[in-house]
Amino acid sequence: MDVKAYMVEVGEKAREASVKIAQASTEAKNRALLAMAEALDNARDKLAQANELDLENGRANGLDSAMLDRLELTPARIDTMIEGLKQVAALPDPVGIIDDMKFMPSGIQVGKMRVPLGVVGIIYESRPNVTVEAASLCLKSGNATILRGGSEAIHSNQAVAVCISQGLSQAGLPEDAVQVVKTTDRAAVGELITMPEYVDVIVPRGGKGLIERVSRDAKVTVIKHLDGICHVFIDRDADHEKAVNVAFNAKTHRYGTCNTMETLLVDEPVAASILPLLAEKYRQEGVELRGCEATRCILTDINPASEDDWSTEYLAPILSVKIVADMEEAIAHINKYGSHHTDSIITENYTRGRTFITAVDSSSVMINASTRFADGFEYGLGAEIGISTDKIHARGPVGLDGLTSQKYVVFGDGHIRQ
Amino acid sequence: MDVKAYMVEVGEKAREASVKIAQASTEAKNRALLAMAEALDNARDKLAQANELDLENGRANGLDSAMLDRLELTPARIDTMIEGLKQVAALPDPVGIIDDMKFMPSGIQVGKMRVPLGVVGIIYESRPNVTVEAASLCLKSGNATILRGGSEAIHSNQAVAVCISQGLSQAGLPEDAVQVVKTTDRAAVGELITMPEYVDVIVPRGGKGLIERVSRDAKVTVIKHLDGICHVFIDRDADHEKAVNVAFNAKTHRYGTCNTMETLLVDEPVAASILPLLAEKYRQEGVELRGCEATRCILTDINPASEDDWSTEYLAPILSVKIVADMEEAIAHINKYGSHHTDSIITENYTRGRTFITAVDSSSVMINASTRFADGFEYGLGAEIGISTDKIHARGPVGLDGLTSQKYVVFGDGHIRQ
Repeated sequence: MDVKAYMVEVGEKAREASVKIAQASTEAKNRALLAMAEALDNARDKLAQANELDLENGRANGLDSAMLDRLELTPARIDTMIEGLKQVAALPDPVGIIDDMKFMPSGIQVGKMRVPLGVVGIIYESRPNVTVEAASLCLKSGNATILRGGSEAIHSNQAVAVCISQGLSQAGLPEDAVQVVKTTDRAAVGELITMPEYVDVIVPRGGKGLIERVSRDAKVTVIKHLDGICHVFIDRDADHEKAVNVAFNAKTHRYGTCNTMETLLVDEPVAASILPLLAEKYRQEGVELRGCEATRCILTDINPASEDDWSTEYLAPILSVKIVADMEEAIAHINKYGSHHTDSIITENYTRGRTFITAVDSSSVMINASTRFADGFEYGLGAEIGISTDKIHARGPVGLDGLTSQKYVVFGDGHIRQ
Repeated sequence: MDVKAYMVEVGEKAREASVKIAQASTEAKNRALLAMAEALDNARDKLAQANELDLENGRANGLDSAMLDRLELTPARIDTMIEGLKQVAALPDPVGIIDDMKFMPSGIQVGKMRVPLGVVGIIYESRPNVTVEAASLCLKSGNATILRGGSEAIHSNQAVAVCISQGLSQAGLPEDAVQVVKTTDRAAVGELITMPEYVDVIVPRGGKGLIERVSRDAKVTVIKHLDGICHVFIDRDADHEKAVNVAFNAKTHRYGTCNTMETLLVDEPVAASILPLLAEKYRQEGVELRGCEATRCILTDINPASEDDWSTEYLAPILSVKIVADMEEAIAHINKYGSHHTDSIITENYTRGRTFITAVDSSSVMINASTRFADGFEYGLGAEIGISTDKIHARGPVGLDGLTSQKYVVFGDGHIRQ
């Protein structure tokens, strides 16, 4: 198979479909999403068979249990996909919204209309449910999508793709609006990210290695975050109860998510009173603490944190702890070692709270809230295609708006430039 | 000189300055802008000397008269630079604006704060006044700037750079916040556009060749437009007076600008009545018309338009004219041959006006207005760094907002994820 020729064909079809899907009515898009949900529900047996094939191959190829778990399409996960499609159908359509329409001194009226980006390329690893999640958000925002899942999930993804096609076709929309790449050849990824004539933006979802490779080689904009090294800073004027609750929640609510706290920073004046309380709660939960020198003077039985710890995303019940002389040191630490994802200050102090959210250069900055809130659903976006830690185009949780652009709309009455 | 090492040093300084400039107060930034204006006013003699050196070299090197004209820093152009600085100082500061702050079901409050992008790289050709224009917009939006002007303007640009440094220094801001590259080695451009660790976005300003090269090789986002192939479509329900006025203005108000109409599309039912009127006006103004077959049946004395004409930006008193069977053909023509810049329909018909602005995939779409309105000042942005025909990050005229990003701000009261 000539991968380049195949991907160009996929790209051409996507570009052509993108023109139609950009102008599809809200009703048609919603109808397609609901028809996809129905098709998935009717295809449970086929999905299970395809998935079993992937799982067998995976076991034969020695995939580890975490990978096999992500690969599995359980009935509950199919339910979640179906539910997700219904939720996206229920979201407001961003396409065509006109904002800020106002009259100018010349007499013309100027506003901005939200429009789709065009073609979105999604590159992901083992989880087949991403196929539906990503396709539904791109469709609702009027984009055509090219999905390239992991080779280990190829049969599951193709079975899901059949249901997506059925949904599109039932709603009278072009089936090429969502294409799942049929080859497992890795060269397909290289082609996908270097076709700016066919693909407008790439969203990679998966491990850091994948995202680094894609970002380095892509010829189009990549919406991504590499790490989630999130901090909670407990300020000297923190309410102790809020501090303990938030710091505990930010670490222990879920360990494997990108918005989980990985480093706790504690202001020196309150370290001795607050750290023993927190350490006891973490100990009961089985969280390993790694501390700076000053921390280990208070918590004498914990391991030391190395320089590497400050820039490590553990994704595990491990937490590095550092005592800082003041908020300025905390901010400098976050901007140096953090990943510009999400950072929170716990304080009752107005001025320091205000300074923190201004000076910390992250996609989400918080006062007295758990970093775990950094999420498209919690922010009211309805859903998210990912979280961006970059500053170009979209930042923070990226929902339907992040998958659109705007164009200027000008209304005149025969107006000419003087 | 080791160009790579020099550019890395420039990049490092810019990155460091960007942190300070991002947090500079509105008052300090405005003070710097006004101090720059004063420094320029006091340096008129030095500017004239430096500019004369560039002009002499230019004449010796055989630059054409258009190039020499762009290179010249007349007293009037210095006045315009000074006036521009005062205007940018008077614009509202976009940095720190918090939008859309609202409560979520969890009780947290979520909004978005506007923040600078970081470091903006500007690559431009002969006009030294761009140095001040670009630097002032980047400074006001809290970004550090690296400016790389054409080698033929090196003395003028360095003389302007001295005034910019004075202004920054007088306002207590880091001088490295605006750096004008000191080497004329072309390799400096190659370095500037491939340093994502130091430069966040590139804005090229100049000819199509420059912009194509920069876009092809850049490793960071480029805010740009290549062509301005703008259309006016006169619909069958156009008011004839508005149609004639707008079509005339869109072509003849200025020939060399990117928002000038290059192709006129006329709906078949009104072609015979409207084209002779318009042709006479264009003839009096010295505009050469090039028509499709059908046009030449009505305007028998004009030259034929070739296929190339439909995708040519004349930047001259030349206009291609095509008669289309209906609006659908006009839209298809615009989306195929246009440059996604600015396109206008002249009509009194509600439904076709609505369809046109939705279906035409351009950064500005208009009803009954001259394409010449596509401009940052006319849209109320106060100023513009350029016009983007891409869909990522910024589209249409790019003002201060386009030089910023947003971060999410979350206010809680000890809120934790349940």
